[in-house]
Amino acid sequence: MTIEITGHMLIGKTAVHGSERQLHAIDPSSGRDIEPAFGAGNANDVARACKLAQQAFDSYRDTALGQRAQFLEQIATNIIDIGPALIQRAMQESGLPQARLEGERGRTVAQLRLFAKVVRDGRWLGATLDSALPERTPPRPDLRLRKIGLGPVAVFGASNFPLAFSVAGGDTTSALAAGCPVVVKAHSAHPGTSELVGKAIQAAVVSCNLPEGVFSLLFGDGRQVGQALVSNPAIKAVGFTGSRQGGMALVRAAAQRDEPIPVYAEMSSINPMFLLPDALATKARQIGAGFVDSLTLGAGQFCTNPGLVIAIEGQYLTAFSDAAIAALQAKSAATMLTPGIHAAYTEGVGQLAMITGVRLLARGQVAATPCGGQAALFMTDADTFLSTPALENEVFGACSLVVSCRSFEQMQEVAEHVTGQLTATLFLTATDHALARQLLPTLERKAGRILVNGYPTGVEVSHAMVHGGPFPATSDSRSTSVGASAIERFLRPVCYQDIPADLLPASLQDGNPLGLWRVSDGELMLA
Amino acid sequence: MTIEITGHMLIGKTAVHGSERQLHAIDPSSGRDIEPAFGAGNANDVARACKLAQQAFDSYRDTALGQRAQFLEQIATNIIDIGPALIQRAMQESGLPQARLEGERGRTVAQLRLFAKVVRDGRWLGATLDSALPERTPPRPDLRLRKIGLGPVAVFGASNFPLAFSVAGGDTTSALAAGCPVVVKAHSAHPGTSELVGKAIQAAVVSCNLPEGVFSLLFGDGRQVGQALVSNPAIKAVGFTGSRQGGMALVRAAAQRDEPIPVYAEMSSINPMFLLPDALATKARQIGAGFVDSLTLGAGQFCTNPGLVIAIEGQYLTAFSDAAIAALQAKSAATMLTPGIHAAYTEGVGQLAMITGVRLLARGQVAATPCGGQAALFMTDADTFLSTPALENEVFGACSLVVSCRSFEQMQEVAEHVTGQLTATLFLTATDHALARQLLPTLERKAGRILVNGYPTGVEVSHAMVHGGPFPATSDSRSTSVGASAIERFLRPVCYQDIPADLLPASLQDGNPLGLWRVSDGELMLA
Repeated sequence: MTIEITGHMLIGKTAVHGSERQLHAIDPSSGRDIEPAFGAGNANDVARACKLAQQAFDSYRDTALGQRAQFLEQIATNIIDIGPALIQRAMQESGLPQARLEGERGRTVAQLRLFAKVVRDGRWLGATLDSALPERTPPRPDLRLRKIGLGPVAVFGASNFPLAFSVAGGDTTSALAAGCPVVVKAHSAHPGTSELVGKAIQAAVVSCNLPEGVFSLLFGDGRQVGQALVSNPAIKAVGFTGSRQGGMALVRAAAQRDEPIPVYAEMSSINPMFLLPDALATKARQIGAGFVDSLTLGAGQFCTNPGLVIAIEGQYLTAFSDAAIAALQAKSAATMLTPGIHAAYTEGVGQLAMITGVRLLARGQVAATPCGGQAALFMTDADTFLSTPALENEVFGACSLVVSCRSFEQMQEVAEHVTGQLTATLFLTATDHALARQLLPTLERKAGRILVNGYPTGVEVSHAMVHGGPFPATSDSRSTSVGASAIERFLRPVCYQDIPADLLPASLQDGNPLGLWRVSDGELMLA
Repeated sequence: MTIEITGHMLIGKTAVHGSERQLHAIDPSSGRDIEPAFGAGNANDVARACKLAQQAFDSYRDTALGQRAQFLEQIATNIIDIGPALIQRAMQESGLPQARLEGERGRTVAQLRLFAKVVRDGRWLGATLDSALPERTPPRPDLRLRKIGLGPVAVFGASNFPLAFSVAGGDTTSALAAGCPVVVKAHSAHPGTSELVGKAIQAAVVSCNLPEGVFSLLFGDGRQVGQALVSNPAIKAVGFTGSRQGGMALVRAAAQRDEPIPVYAEMSSINPMFLLPDALATKARQIGAGFVDSLTLGAGQFCTNPGLVIAIEGQYLTAFSDAAIAALQAKSAATMLTPGIHAAYTEGVGQLAMITGVRLLARGQVAATPCGGQAALFMTDADTFLSTPALENEVFGACSLVVSCRSFEQMQEVAEHVTGQLTATLFLTATDHALARQLLPTLERKAGRILVNGYPTGVEVSHAMVHGGPFPATSDSRSTSVGASAIERFLRPVCYQDIPADLLPASLQDGNPLGLWRVSDGELMLA
């Protein structure tokens, strides 16, 4: 399938060239504009997309589980069918290498297929039945609960995963799975990639005979189009992946509505790694090398990038640092996603270097391209870290800080001090288990995912994944933006009391016609 | 067990007489103060209770399921053991009759026991396991998810259920079930009842060998003690039942924290009842009489009180109104909960009467006591209703409005027009099913619970209950404050990646030692 990139927004079934400011994608390896121009939308475009989404909601949420699953699978097929043009455009717009983007496309498609399975299983419906007890005083009515979609969802994609966390990423996919129409505000860093994927979704809407408002794609900036979208009364939830500043702007906009709505903003995390004493004594060099690989993966542009390493001072920490320094100095500068991200990274690294008590351990190789990110590793002591709030700020890119502690108690103090994180990692041996047991309760309170002897950058799309965590890692720690549980973000329960059989939704009918797992009078059963 | 009412707050294991303003409960039937005086707390008291809660959290959330369940059951036993003194004090403070309060105590105790069962079942843990796939490229790690408590929870009880929605009500019980310590700000209308129940919880904390910070009870007003509580960094979620004004003040306070936290405020609902044509034609008088019984139950002081009736104009609606008028005129005025609630009710009824296009159908009998609420029934037409936002305001008490429509289409318009509700009710016969099918999608978007041929005032404590709904019925439509699912409000997921067997929580260990329902590689099983 050859899809031309036209610079048009997709408002339902209509392609519209936005009449506001004209935008170009920028090739970060050259700094040059990429054709064509994309027209930013205005308030009317936002209103139209939201109205169509609202009109589509009742019909879309009423689709049979199989039909909705097929729709997700059709989107996956359509994305694959775009072929190499999608990868080429994403490479141009993001500076990310081909293999990485092909892998990311695989992840995106697998995610759509996982959610198709999740939809078919129907456990997300939470079907629950309490029998009537007419003889009881007072009589108990017949009560049946299922979950339904919240309503139209606004999605703001991330720059760092132009496929997996963007137009057809986890937020869109889980919202569509929940029965919610989606209006995406495309990230300005990859509008062409967004248009291609948007057309793949639009085509699936058509071929699956769904109402056009199930999906729209808008261009424009966050302050205008983004705020208008979040403020529109038809929108009932927001998914966002990006900076803390951007996420909090949406949280505030949502709180100012007449009707407040949930905002799932996945924002900033420095992903502490705790190196326990025996692991450090026995594997310092190996951990140091592996850490640098994780740190520099994708130019360090992962939400789960290890930005903080905590260990007890001494010869073994020196061995770790020496290995990390050697590995880092050999790393070439990778092209960062946008000139803005590169500038912020350069500034963040510069600010870290100026903080009293922080010293530079190593830089990666000097950049050869305009947006090349030169990796950086710093060190400080725990006293400085505990007394310097700025050291907890995320520097988005391949930049990390080693915190040397006087004792395990000081490592615990650092663990208790850090704010909410997407991940926390422990390196340990069997000898370290007693210490790990002391740290785990703190890490459970601080992070959405706890790893042992691994690096946090990989985020598996599966049933048990949590890509979330306490504030400021996200704006809502009750949820995950990756993995099967992400669907729960876009659902609410409805209870049906004494509803006649033929008015009940199929999921709650006697005899369990859909073959769902249901809770009946408190017991979970397939009946 | 005889418990003296001393006017003391309970801060962990300590009884403290608050040093701020001295408060008295008021007997609403006489308007007189009830002894003793209760001392309101200050910022230090709030800080101390929150600190104890924070210190208790890791230890309390680590309790075995059986131990935590026993704690809830012990609270139930201790509440029963208070004996008639609890009922007598609650009668004095609330003006509610003995049978109602005995029923409410039964509900409170049953709720504690239901959550003990919920805790033991352990489905709330959401245990989910994805096997490692070491041969895959890239290898998949071992991933295991369980839910843990959010942290200490602040609870604000309601005046209208001094037992079931107060100190040991649904919010406290579900938060304790989730493993969260609780700090209750007692409702100033029933401080003595609160102290008695608080001591029952405190005694259970002691006898179950739990850390003292698991429970504290504070006195004081919402603006000072309440705001300080919600603003305290140790507090990670808020449960509230009360007015929209009170709920929104807490929502705003929570949004202004450095770390935003969820607020579950159950606020205001007018609970529309839609009388479909054939039901109206065949059962108008019966529905009218039943409606008035529901409207006047507990002096109309139910969140689920039917404050809006929608039907097509004509002889059958007149028959309904005539039956309702006759029933209402026979209803004696019941004592309302507080002088403030009575004054607000009187003012609300007065304001409704002055709105152009609204006419009074009937009043109940004149009150004989200072806080007696004289029931009121009004009528208007749909055009007036649709163009007068004030007609959607909740008048807390036995006040309702009948909206006459020209057609079923206008009934649909009214359904689409109303804001979020706790409940929506349909009266129908088999002949009305086709019309009901047209209304149901709208009602699902508007309400947490949909009833057929019943009255919304009863709220069963069971597995399938939803006592929640879209804003402004609640501040978070994703949840319920009554029933087993209420526990989900106070949980967040944590994922464990490649954690060694002996560091895993029991719920996630191989071999399923707790015998839980778990999702393993996407399949639900008891293994």
